[in-house]
Amino acid sequence: MSTPTQTKQWILSNKPTDLPQLFGPSPTFTLETNALPALKPDQVLVKAHYISNDPAQRGWITKGVDPARLYVPPVPQGGVMRARSVAEVIQSKSEKYKKGDKVIATTGWAEYAVLNAKDLQPVQQIEGVSETHYLGAFGLTGLTAYYGTKVVARAGPQDTVVVSGAAGATGSMVVQIAKKMLGCKRVVGMAGSDKKCRWVESLGADVCLNYKRESFRKDLIEATDGFVEVYFDNVGGEILDLMLTRMKKEGRVAACGAVANYNTSSPTGLRNWFEVITNRLEIKGFIVMDFMAQGKAPEAVWEMVKALKEGKIKVGDESETVVETKFEDVPKTWMMLFEGGNTGKLVTKLV
Amino acid sequence: MSTPTQTKQWILSNKPTDLPQLFGPSPTFTLETNALPALKPDQVLVKAHYISNDPAQRGWITKGVDPARLYVPPVPQGGVMRARSVAEVIQSKSEKYKKGDKVIATTGWAEYAVLNAKDLQPVQQIEGVSETHYLGAFGLTGLTAYYGTKVVARAGPQDTVVVSGAAGATGSMVVQIAKKMLGCKRVVGMAGSDKKCRWVESLGADVCLNYKRESFRKDLIEATDGFVEVYFDNVGGEILDLMLTRMKKEGRVAACGAVANYNTSSPTGLRNWFEVITNRLEIKGFIVMDFMAQGKAPEAVWEMVKALKEGKIKVGDESETVVETKFEDVPKTWMMLFEGGNTGKLVTKLV
Repeated sequence: MSTPTQTKQWILSNKPTDLPQLFGPSPTFTLETNALPALKPDQVLVKAHYISNDPAQRGWITKGVDPARLYVPPVPQGGVMRARSVAEVIQSKSEKYKKGDKVIATTGWAEYAVLNAKDLQPVQQIEGVSETHYLGAFGLTGLTAYYGTKVVARAGPQDTVVVSGAAGATGSMVVQIAKKMLGCKRVVGMAGSDKKCRWVESLGADVCLNYKRESFRKDLIEATDGFVEVYFDNVGGEILDLMLTRMKKEGRVAACGAVANYNTSSPTGLRNWFEVITNRLEIKGFIVMDFMAQGKAPEAVWEMVKALKEGKIKVGDESETVVETKFEDVPKTWMMLFEGGNTGKLVTKLV
Repeated sequence: MSTPTQTKQWILSNKPTDLPQLFGPSPTFTLETNALPALKPDQVLVKAHYISNDPAQRGWITKGVDPARLYVPPVPQGGVMRARSVAEVIQSKSEKYKKGDKVIATTGWAEYAVLNAKDLQPVQQIEGVSETHYLGAFGLTGLTAYYGTKVVARAGPQDTVVVSGAAGATGSMVVQIAKKMLGCKRVVGMAGSDKKCRWVESLGADVCLNYKRESFRKDLIEATDGFVEVYFDNVGGEILDLMLTRMKKEGRVAACGAVANYNTSSPTGLRNWFEVITNRLEIKGFIVMDFMAQGKAPEAVWEMVKALKEGKIKVGDESETVVETKFEDVPKTWMMLFEGGNTGKLVTKLV
């Protein structure tokens, strides 16, 4: 194969206000073929194999949102749609990477991309870990769990940790990191079915509660007898409100997600605010990108991979949907995120 | 006057669930006369002159509340009702205090009390500062403002600080501490009338907004153009919810009070929670007692008094109601707290 000099790219052509539009007079994205820039020293040319699909991407393209209120810069109109990928090095002017190496890269929605070597992470070939896991369990998802539990919530051996969305991509990693890597005294999960709960317990949670059961409130009070030091919140809403009443004095809440409120314009309000004062709670919102920016992600991933090799943590197939997709259909696969068409992490496999 | 050997005391005889009862078959408090213990080394005997009345005291006597969820231990049934006072040393076995010294002491509702010298704070005679100010501006109220602004919110010269309840006892001190002692770039107050707002501005706020005005939301957005680093929250509820949308990335919220919710069983919920995540806000509840326990209160008071002497901060009569009261009527004066009978700090003057 000769080295490509151009690439197909999906360009953000019209910022949406509601659901992105794939067709019509003002499509959200437009397919273009553009010349690739010449490789400079310390750069590599990569080909994307798997593209990560994340609800957060929707926020990066919304029309009219004040960039100051976004946690990463918005994708500019006319720019390549931003996305992370598992990619392969095709040509290298970096000592760090050679042809054939697999890397995690922010290629965007593009077949090929020229990138700075320093912005890439190597994909390690490890038994039991698929490349796509580097977009999930060992990617931003896993790093979110890692930094949120270890750094934001400062969970340690003295602590009981409660995590909501425990059967989700992030939550299932929080359970394992808390219990198996940080040695937390006790880990309590919450999930939406008994089946999910048994899986969460198989990952190491001391107990997992089905929040759809009628007895949930009572179950939670029992499971948090004596109150808890740490709550890793993936859901917000009523469960967060209830958890404020179950925190120990000076307890820490890592505010990671609020999925209970993503699709409603009138979210459930928090009513137990006074607990924050009387029990001197510390609540910290966080965004994994901030930690990535500190350049320590490779170390964190390595620590998790090491825990995997030692049998401390497991990554299963439960939370991954890989969809084989022609490049022309990349936006269509991404839209499955908003159609409930996937379970767990949605990954686009370019074919 | 011979040295007293006994004292009148108000005893917590029946813990209330709703409003405390002064009369009837199960009165909340009972007047007793009890013997005073003999003075040991490093102790003093004091006589109470002014007693501080605080809504927080209500929380210390509620029936059936889990002590683990209270920020100070509850007053035990049969114990003297807890309260802070301006008191005078009658007899001393401490090198620190001599007869006639004025001190701030946790005498409780008692005419006389034997206390450890280490638990007292001396009252300094300073022009422009009345003794009762040591129960308010230079007492727990002022210390709440001091620690909340300086330590919890870490406000400094780079910061814009917004404070709600800015015309209140705590808020008016926050305004002055932020602007005059910590040199914050800009201080924005909120209060419930134009008159109060002008007073808050006279204390040093760059601007104070009347939250009862129809234009309040617009006014606040204008006054926080560019967003703010620090919010000192005395009110909770809707104003806190609105402020979450006006915080800068990594902004700090010192959660001090939630007066909007004290008297309702269905408090307004917080709906802008997602701002906590996307803007990585840090919210910390705090209780001034925790800082008192660290033994640094005298230094903090001294720093505030120094600022007063230098003309940096002012303490006026606006926020003080002193009620002359016979000892037999101490609970009755305290009950004014729940009848809206006072403006600002309610102080009992024993006569």
